[in-house]
Amino acid sequence: MGPLIYRRSKILEVFVEYKIGIIGLGLMGGSLAFALRGFRGAWIVGADVQAEVCQKAERSGAVDEAHTDAAKAMESADLIIFCVYAHNIPALIEKNRSAIRPGAVLTDICGVKSGLYKELEGVVPEHADYIGIHPMAGKEKDGFDNADPVIYKNSGLIICPLPSTRKASIELMRELAGYIGVTRLAVSPAGIHDEIIAYTSDLMHISAAGLCLDYHRSMSSAYTAGAYRDCTRIADINAEAWTELLMANRLNTMEYLDRHIGGLEKIRECLAERDDKGLYELLEIAGQNKREMLKR
Amino acid sequence: MGPLIYRRSKILEVFVEYKIGIIGLGLMGGSLAFALRGFRGAWIVGADVQAEVCQKAERSGAVDEAHTDAAKAMESADLIIFCVYAHNIPALIEKNRSAIRPGAVLTDICGVKSGLYKELEGVVPEHADYIGIHPMAGKEKDGFDNADPVIYKNSGLIICPLPSTRKASIELMRELAGYIGVTRLAVSPAGIHDEIIAYTSDLMHISAAGLCLDYHRSMSSAYTAGAYRDCTRIADINAEAWTELLMANRLNTMEYLDRHIGGLEKIRECLAERDDKGLYELLEIAGQNKREMLKR
Repeated sequence: MGPLIYRRSKILEVFVEYKIGIIGLGLMGGSLAFALRGFRGAWIVGADVQAEVCQKAERSGAVDEAHTDAAKAMESADLIIFCVYAHNIPALIEKNRSAIRPGAVLTDICGVKSGLYKELEGVVPEHADYIGIHPMAGKEKDGFDNADPVIYKNSGLIICPLPSTRKASIELMRELAGYIGVTRLAVSPAGIHDEIIAYTSDLMHISAAGLCLDYHRSMSSAYTAGAYRDCTRIADINAEAWTELLMANRLNTMEYLDRHIGGLEKIRECLAERDDKGLYELLEIAGQNKREMLKR
Repeated sequence: MGPLIYRRSKILEVFVEYKIGIIGLGLMGGSLAFALRGFRGAWIVGADVQAEVCQKAERSGAVDEAHTDAAKAMESADLIIFCVYAHNIPALIEKNRSAIRPGAVLTDICGVKSGLYKELEGVVPEHADYIGIHPMAGKEKDGFDNADPVIYKNSGLIICPLPSTRKASIELMRELAGYIGVTRLAVSPAGIHDEIIAYTSDLMHISAAGLCLDYHRSMSSAYTAGAYRDCTRIADINAEAWTELLMANRLNTMEYLDRHIGGLEKIRECLAERDDKGLYELLEIAGQNKREMLKR
């Protein structure tokens, strides 16, 4: 066990009794570190496999200290936040089991939950509590260098409790979400979360990538406006991260992708048959749905 | 023939010798009227079938005068700009043939050119010159009430000459484009224009509409972020205008739509086969293409 009291400031000699460990200081973890400064007056300890990133995180003031050894961030922490690829989380917990203090809350920010939760069965120590969150925030550019707490301002966030999650941990996540600037909050089990995300996130990324698999060789920016810009913005994708995310949610994603292809084929049929009325009706339905969704 | 000299200002008694007629004062025509204020010191006459719109256009200063009779805007004008649905243009020219002065330049701002140009054969009087333009600008909301010259600032514009178009008319359109704030200009024949637009505009609108034909009934804004917002922004579409635009360019659009569906099916296959490498490669290609297109 590490110390339970941390000196918050060298000048003011303020001591705090809350420690947050952030494992992974990429875009999301780095931004979260900045955003959590002051949360419960916590001492924030980061961990990243790259020593250079740890140095940057310390120097920029994102964290109080940073280490390449995750155990240093996890030991005796009240709150441990995993901001790494989902497949690394079970091993990190197993390896550092003894460093996790009784009553610690463990969370992750992964975009798909069902598969991860299955892998965590029997891995999370009984003296700790697990609760996943999914911040609906990001940027096209990765890495600590692009970290910015503003990405969480006015964003959405889904809290995904396990059946075993304590109520106090749900409240802690609500408090954290409000602190980092989240304005649209939902609480849902992993299964529902993964279904909805297959539509609102996975399908959108596939659509944008799909639109850029092919293009007219004579085109230039003179031919583009907001429609092209927005529909394809996220096509410059982190292919590694998104391969993992899409595969982790493949069944849900395939269902929504099939429905989308089906919708596009209906539009195609109207064009092929010169069915003005049918096309008009499909466009009207799409507009109505979009307006309905904007209200929710 | 109407007068050839117009009083530009009641106070300064400045007289000008250039008249612009703008037929149709909706979002695009109204915005163009505002944007063209001062262009060649012109007297700008608008025309719209709705008397209320004419009044608003005069009162707001978008035009010097406005009439429900298109002939009033067309007669003796040096430049006539049709900002109406494409199918109305040939009849407007035929009906007001005698009002068109020798040397007048006629243009339209329609999004599809090949079909329109075919219909215009034998309709444009020999003493006038025709040249289409396509401003890559717009808004989700229609009508004069939403008119704003800023939509043309830093936008793209394509000049589409006919084989018969005079060079001076191309230069006039370049001058006009620069005046309203266009920063990305292309000149291309109707056929090439329509092909490229099928990708950069028609396909994007179909994609956004298609993504909104279906959605998860339990979703709320907590589950959405930039990906959803941008990929579906233009789904709240003017169904009437877009039915006409898509049908007018249906063969080109169907070709790009087929290619897009083909790309989505490739991604689907990777998901179905758990082909991580294949999915990664498709996402990489999409990212490379997107970056390449941003340079053009």
